Amino acid sequence: MPKVDQEHLDARRAQIVDAARVRFAAQGFAGTSMGDIVAESGLSTGAIYRYFAGKDELVLAVCEQGAEAFPQALTAEAIAAFVADVRRRAAQGHARLVAQIYAEAALNPALGAVVARRLAELRDAVEALGLSRSAAEAFVAVCVGYSAQLAVRGDVDPAPVVAALLAVVRG
Amino acid sequence: MPKVDQEHLDARRAQIVDAARVRFAAQGFAGTSMGDIVAESGLSTGAIYRYFAGKDELVLAVCEQGAEAFPQALTAEAIAAFVADVRRRAAQGHARLVAQIYAEAALNPALGAVVARRLAELRDAVEALGLSRSAAEAFVAVCVGYSAQLAVRGDVDPAPVVAALLAVVRG
Repeated sequence: MPKVDQEHLDARRAQIVDAARVRFAAQGFAGTSMGDIVAESGLSTGAIYRYFAGKDELVLAVCEQGAEAFPQALTAEAIAAFVADVRRRAAQGHARLVAQIYAEAALNPALGAVVARRLAELRDAVEALGLSRSAAEAFVAVCVGYSAQLAVRGDVDPAPVVAALLAVVRG
Repeated sequence: MPKVDQEHLDARRAQIVDAARVRFAAQGFAGTSMGDIVAESGLSTGAIYRYFAGKDELVLAVCEQGAEAFPQALTAEAIAAFVADVRRRAAQGHARLVAQIYAEAALNPALGAVVARRLAELRDAVEALGLSRSAAEAFVAVCVGYSAQLAVRGDVDPAPVVAALLAVVRG
């Protein structure tokens, strides 16, 4: 396929996944219809079904395309920047979406495997920065806990979370 | 009302909430009908509607009656026992239920307030054991993160979580 055509297809697919992400974050998976996603995307129903056979495929695409933030280093500054990034994304609805993904992943083993893989990626990225496997697991637990609380409480002071991550890093 | 009648009503109500909890944990809120809860409870439809006008009231009752574990002290032993308790409950479906509650609380401000209150109770309980407010917030973040991962990954090694909580406690 010519490169420009593939780029067009990829861009259109990303546009649909973005629309799904917005509606899933606001309404949950069960509360969102394909019609809602069509409306949000500005594309036609036919265009969307050319890319996705149904909502289940879109749920999977949203879970796979997580684009989570990773810390760049284990210094106090880098960790504070990472937590600030998680908080900034939460304000844009990302934490709400993550809460929907976890709930669905807890019920659906195929989604659960996708989410477990993404959590392992974060753990591995942190381990590669110089933590033990165990400390990297703990680091992930703190991040997941912060995101879940942002989803429910709207905003949560990042300072205790940064302190917890630093405590984990220092062992 | 005579005491015995009130006890009977309370027991019946708890029986319905327990049935709802089982089905919500297995099927999510959206995937569970009042009929499912009637079937799970072994009571009649009429009996259930005498206590709850509909599913929304049952969702709220389940969120309010969390019965979360609290740590009894901040020693390594007590924290390990607390984490083991969280893990044991998760194996009984509790972590899956909590994931459903968080997802719903992220979309529904009334439920969000209930969950935020329960998180504050856990934070206050840990603070009362001798932690700073900030460390108590971090403690809660770790617990929430462990529960969320148990929901998705099925089982998760408790050792890194215990280590993270001890790191938070030691500052």
